[in-house]
Amino acid sequence: MTDNTHKEAQHLHRLILFSDAVFAIAITLLAIEIHPPEHWRGVADLFGQMQHKLMAYVVSFAVVGIYWVSHRRTYSRLRRADGVLDGLNLVMLGLLALLPLGTELLWENGNAASVFVYVGLVTAIGLAHAAAWGYAAFFGGLSEPMPALEKIYVLLRVALLPGLMCSLTFVSLITHTPWGWLGIALVVGGLSVINRLMARKAAAVQTAEA
Amino acid sequence: MTDNTHKEAQHLHRLILFSDAVFAIAITLLAIEIHPPEHWRGVADLFGQMQHKLMAYVVSFAVVGIYWVSHRRTYSRLRRADGVLDGLNLVMLGLLALLPLGTELLWENGNAASVFVYVGLVTAIGLAHAAAWGYAAFFGGLSEPMPALEKIYVLLRVALLPGLMCSLTFVSLITHTPWGWLGIALVVGGLSVINRLMARKAAAVQTAEA
Amino acid sequence: MTDNTHKEAQHLHRLILFSDAVFAIAITLLAIEIHPPEHWRGVADLFGQMQHKLMAYVVSFAVVGIYWVSHRRTYSRLRRADGVLDGLNLVMLGLLALLPLGTELLWENGNAASVFVYVGLVTAIGLAHAAAWGYAAFFGGLSEPMPALEKIYVLLRVALLPGLMCSLTFVSLITHTPWGWLGIALVVGGLSVINRLMARKAAAVQTAEA
Amino acid sequence: MTDNTHKEAQHLHRLILFSDAVFAIAITLLAIEIHPPEHWRGVADLFGQMQHKLMAYVVSFAVVGIYWVSHRRTYSRLRRADGVLDGLNLVMLGLLALLPLGTELLWENGNAASVFVYVGLVTAIGLAHAAAWGYAAFFGGLSEPMPALEKIYVLLRVALLPGLMCSLTFVSLITHTPWGWLGIALVVGGLSVINRLMARKAAAVQTAEA
Repeated sequence: MTDNTHKEAQHLHRLILFSDAVFAIAITLLAIEIHPPEHWRGVADLFGQMQHKLMAYVVSFAVVGIYWVSHRRTYSRLRRADGVLDGLNLVMLGLLALLPLGTELLWENGNAASVFVYVGLVTAIGLAHAAAWGYAAFFGGLSEPMPALEKIYVLLRVALLPGLMCSLTFVSLITHTPWGWLGIALVVGGLSVINRLMARKAAAVQTAEA
Repeated sequence: MTDNTHKEAQHLHRLILFSDAVFAIAITLLAIEIHPPEHWRGVADLFGQMQHKLMAYVVSFAVVGIYWVSHRRTYSRLRRADGVLDGLNLVMLGLLALLPLGTELLWENGNAASVFVYVGLVTAIGLAHAAAWGYAAFFGGLSEPMPALEKIYVLLRVALLPGLMCSLTFVSLITHTPWGWLGIALVVGGLSVINRLMARKAAAVQTAEA
Repeated sequence: MTDNTHKEAQHLHRLILFSDAVFAIAITLLAIEIHPPEHWRGVADLFGQMQHKLMAYVVSFAVVGIYWVSHRRTYSRLRRADGVLDGLNLVMLGLLALLPLGTELLWENGNAASVFVYVGLVTAIGLAHAAAWGYAAFFGGLSEPMPALEKIYVLLRVALLPGLMCSLTFVSLITHTPWGWLGIALVVGGLSVINRLMARKAAAVQTAEA
Repeated sequence: MTDNTHKEAQHLHRLILFSDAVFAIAITLLAIEIHPPEHWRGVADLFGQMQHKLMAYVVSFAVVGIYWVSHRRTYSRLRRADGVLDGLNLVMLGLLALLPLGTELLWENGNAASVFVYVGLVTAIGLAHAAAWGYAAFFGGLSEPMPALEKIYVLLRVALLPGLMCSLTFVSLITHTPWGWLGIALVVGGLSVINRLMARKAAAVQTAEA
């Protein structure tokens, strides 16, 4: 039995290492298709010509970064892994590995349809990640003990946040207004307050139990 | 002696980490040669033009994913590693690293010969993996204690499953009939039943021993 | 509480693994855009034609190597990680992942503006790294116990050293004079002396405490 | 003091992980520049046209694989790491990362000069690896306790073997004679006998000590 528990913890460990490697490669490959322009005069002209590519790079780097942080957070709540989690995590990584392609689409052809496809891809990654968490927490019994309400909160955050933040970013980038940034600030601030309240409550529960 | 055992466990650990990194890179590179078409109108046209590439990507991603799961599973049954396992594992990784090339072949030229080469490559990876397992379990004495019948079962599963599933997938994709998918469902279902029976038997043996 | 400490140590561990993977990919990708010339006669001609590319490769490899060593050193002084460190570390990695692009700029167009952009990028990586260390040591309480003066020394070294050494290298490469190399030798020598003095003092403090 | 020992072991651990990642990326990138020919008829024609590329791939994959095995072996004899080892290991990795470029040279232009450059690169990697081992074993005091003669034997093996085996391979590939393969068989057989004798002697020493 103990041997089995050890193996399942090892399984989770290897799953996380593999995911980390895919994250690291996806984030580093974002820049690989960016090449300097053939002709340019001075630094300002260089940045002017590369503006779209660098902007798309920054957005995609932020997206992969947020997903990595989110992955690290949710998987730190898990105790074990199983074959179904392997599969759902692979679906998420398979979508993530398409982000360099989505980024290329964004800079080559910054029209509405490109943005639509890109936001759709980001949203799909979020949904796949949420499916993995949902399975692990509600069906697979893979998570550490935690209240059902917190599991649902994590599910919603994982499913909706990336698509929402990505959409708000494009709202600001395209309309040249601050409303998108303002929305992001509100979302981040609100979540930070909720996180603090939950941590305080959890600490209170722990104290009461001790 | 204990120092030696520790070293052999370390050896296995490093072998697994190295393999995981190669898996992660191979799976992420599958998408790197996919570029958006130069001209497209609307999302439907974009997906229409990229259909073949995305289909090949999905198939190859599934292949690498299945091999990763299979590698994780078989190597979790090992206790130690040695130089021969290093070599056989490298042969498997060397074939796996050719999958991005095989995928390109598939989408550029989806004729019968391409499919033949692709399925041949997938089968070769499976055979190399099976050779590694067979050596580790039967000759190298590297596996945890397990019944000979189970070792043979794992060997057959590792050797035949990927090529079989890959062939069945192409049967369905090419003939536009559900027979391939049906075959996959039957194989997966049958293996799942066998796995359960073996786990139940192993648990019974453990209980009897205790 | 112990569970929490364990989690924060795990967090740091995963942050370091992820960073290592990005470092490894960035350093290996430096060579990927280098291709042999189409026509060449004999080894001397080959190296003559590839001289600029190989030189840029050596410089960039040294830069990433120095950053890796620096990252390994500073993060070995940390005990825990948190979300802010995740973010600052990601900014650093995001700039680092642009180095293959900067290297291409350098070899394709070795004019003053290219060198300026390249040194600027190297300096920006150093500043982002310094910001991560500064936050961890002074605000986040993430480092092991150490004197404030040492924290500041590490901060300055991390922030200024890479940009300085990179500038000195280009001084020598461009002016074909040894002054840049001499400057590097002086800086490395001076830091080595300071490091030794600090280690001796730390040892004295430890002995006094024991 | 114990804290310091722990840190130095951690240092070695991170050095090995980083090296493994670079090995994994270099070995996987070997295949990335291989693309299927534009026109081909049937499987035999495809393999005929890709013969040179696949041959170069096999040779380079074997080279990186042998270096990985060699790196794993020598570094498993180390107990600690320091800054000098970091530097020497980075030089080795920097040369290794040029192997995809060397491989391209080999298949594009399989003349004597290409082979000369390629074998030179392989030999340089071996020498850099030997320098790292030599420093660690003789000057840095980083290795586990072992007889001086064994240290020298490892040094010679690491320094000379890869270049020798690579040269012998090309002897056979170019002259279409079996002499190169025969030489490799003799070298591998001889080393295997020496390894066995040394292991037996070490076991005898251990028994005598106990």
